[in-house]
Amino acid sequence: MPTSAEDVIGRCRLLAEFTEEPGFTTRTFLSAPMHAVHAHIRTWMEQAGLSVVTDHAGNLRGFYPADRNSAPRLFIGSHLDTVPRAGAFDGILGVVLGVALIERLNGRHIPFGVEVIGFSEEEGVRFGVPFIGSRALIGDVDDALLATIADAITAFGLDPRRIGEARVGDDALGYLEFHIEQGPVLESLDLPLGVVEAISGQSRLDVLFKGSANHAGTTPMHLRRDALAGAAEWISAVEREAPSVPGAVATVGRVAVSPGASNVIPGSVTTSLDVRHPNDAVRHEIVERLLRCANHIAARRCLTVSWERRLDQPAVAMDSALTQMLERAVAATGRPVHRMPSGAGHDAMIVARRMPAAMLFVSSPGGISHHPDESVLAEDVAEALEVGMAFLEELERRYA
Amino acid sequence: MPTSAEDVIGRCRLLAEFTEEPGFTTRTFLSAPMHAVHAHIRTWMEQAGLSVVTDHAGNLRGFYPADRNSAPRLFIGSHLDTVPRAGAFDGILGVVLGVALIERLNGRHIPFGVEVIGFSEEEGVRFGVPFIGSRALIGDVDDALLATIADAITAFGLDPRRIGEARVGDDALGYLEFHIEQGPVLESLDLPLGVVEAISGQSRLDVLFKGSANHAGTTPMHLRRDALAGAAEWISAVEREAPSVPGAVATVGRVAVSPGASNVIPGSVTTSLDVRHPNDAVRHEIVERLLRCANHIAARRCLTVSWERRLDQPAVAMDSALTQMLERAVAATGRPVHRMPSGAGHDAMIVARRMPAAMLFVSSPGGISHHPDESVLAEDVAEALEVGMAFLEELERRYA
Repeated sequence: MPTSAEDVIGRCRLLAEFTEEPGFTTRTFLSAPMHAVHAHIRTWMEQAGLSVVTDHAGNLRGFYPADRNSAPRLFIGSHLDTVPRAGAFDGILGVVLGVALIERLNGRHIPFGVEVIGFSEEEGVRFGVPFIGSRALIGDVDDALLATIADAITAFGLDPRRIGEARVGDDALGYLEFHIEQGPVLESLDLPLGVVEAISGQSRLDVLFKGSANHAGTTPMHLRRDALAGAAEWISAVEREAPSVPGAVATVGRVAVSPGASNVIPGSVTTSLDVRHPNDAVRHEIVERLLRCANHIAARRCLTVSWERRLDQPAVAMDSALTQMLERAVAATGRPVHRMPSGAGHDAMIVARRMPAAMLFVSSPGGISHHPDESVLAEDVAEALEVGMAFLEELERRYA
Repeated sequence: MPTSAEDVIGRCRLLAEFTEEPGFTTRTFLSAPMHAVHAHIRTWMEQAGLSVVTDHAGNLRGFYPADRNSAPRLFIGSHLDTVPRAGAFDGILGVVLGVALIERLNGRHIPFGVEVIGFSEEEGVRFGVPFIGSRALIGDVDDALLATIADAITAFGLDPRRIGEARVGDDALGYLEFHIEQGPVLESLDLPLGVVEAISGQSRLDVLFKGSANHAGTTPMHLRRDALAGAAEWISAVEREAPSVPGAVATVGRVAVSPGASNVIPGSVTTSLDVRHPNDAVRHEIVERLLRCANHIAARRCLTVSWERRLDQPAVAMDSALTQMLERAVAATGRPVHRMPSGAGHDAMIVARRMPAAMLFVSSPGGISHHPDESVLAEDVAEALEVGMAFLEELERRYA
């Protein structure tokens, strides 16, 4: 009997029990509970005929050999770490689905090898640096990063000097990642699955409005230079401008008011700005428009405004051949094929620098993620398994 | 030679040297540097013929007797404590001016006694409770407050059990307070002095907008319930609505965004609201209008909004007879008389519960207060001295 969607969900929920914080799922890079997660997945992998190693970046890697020598290798995976107080599916689902697909092969070997990989780190919680696992896979851990994480690697029983061995060889065929959508789009379209066409680029800035702090009781309204009133006008402008560009999202998520007392007119306000779009030129144009807007608002109010660019991360397109293969696999289920950008970063974005990569989203009920209420529907996971098998079958025909 | 405006300013600057924090003026209720401030003022007072005591609330009190028995007593004063990193004039100026007026009498006694009082506490910094000094004068220190401050009183060398002795007797004629404006109105009108007609009432509320926290990258703009976008729209409404009511000020000075990460759509936002107006009914109507506005904004955005009322402090009118006397004294300088509300609370507001009270504002250059740059102009202080003398002279004629 093949591994069912319910089995997949059960395994994800079981792994969610291993946590640094009882009562929640909190499992950062190479934290103690990661040992138990590895042990469980290793058992499933070995039972399915994979040979398992943990590389020295802490990635758990199970290899299912091809039916011939010198065959290429398909990677299927996602990450095993979580944010604090996470749900049970972000990351984990992609690894557990990878194992389940091999289980469905039922011992039959195919013309290419499959490596199921559970990345040790994607969320960036423990060291403030995300994607450590997938960066090790593509050989992108520099000395500074290695110095930061070396003690954690040693404490986990691994050898930081051997992290280079984690690097992928020349036999990579491509990378497939299943991941929960972490957004409400698929649910709003009543679709179980979405094919990711690109990981959106991201701009992050801090925008600082400066006015004049003053007494809230003694300063008449017309003599104020209220930095928060200016920032509020701009936050409304961000919300108004972003939807005029299809596919764009823009968010102010952080506001720091100084001095921040109820009886003092705010003298300065720092807000964050996060802008994402699958097209980098469009994203840059949105950012510039919002900054011009901040300038106009500040000038009219006798405030000053300045900004610091914190991040300018280019969009990463998924591989078109693999993506089309995924689309055919989705179409074979009889469902409409929905292409979408990923507004969030994923391991696929890193891995794509070294091999063709493709990504399939599974609908997130309520759009909820990074929260204990995060869930998936069994019928959606069942369709993901079906699509995964159809994807393997098309590849099988191609390499036969 | 009478004490000049320059002398007054020099004394204020000298007293600003006594501080808990070197390099700044920080002098809270009964803190160690208050001893030196008392010692200096006591010397000036005694030289001017006042007999000085420190009451058991820590108020410094110098009495200048009348030219007859059973005469009433005029209080002139303000407070000696400061906010952290204060200026040299807030509070202190009113005490030093009181001493200077007696010095100008040059030993001549008049038909009423004058008590110059330096209140120990007005700012509420040390124990989070303001007006402790003036509350002791009117007998309004309850057991709970006394328990809170008893150790500090003892440590200063006073006896908390005797705090009741601070209470004013039946001979009070009235209270006169000089204070810096702490706002930009007088400077904008090019006037040195303003006559306070009332201390504005204050409403303080916390207003909580709740939406849905979500991923900034994966949640399309049209599927968001962004609590900060709602709060920003409301902050703009507060700024737009308040000026439609003459004399009203409304301020949002504090914003707390949750979860407050640049890549998460804000799920909830708490803002402060501070509304002040000399007429309580008008103030209540403004608050209700702003809350209705918050309700409309929240409803349209599928947010919820709730609020907690933190403070509803009624306006306190100054005594009309004393205030008219002050106005005549200002008019005698040849300047236009400007009546104004005080948007800030002052000791006069507390003292007014037990005796007629009047207040004169001295222009604050740049509207700056509660800051090391706080200042006064010598020519404005000179006019305040003139007005104070004219005020005493009219009272003298009245009681002759």
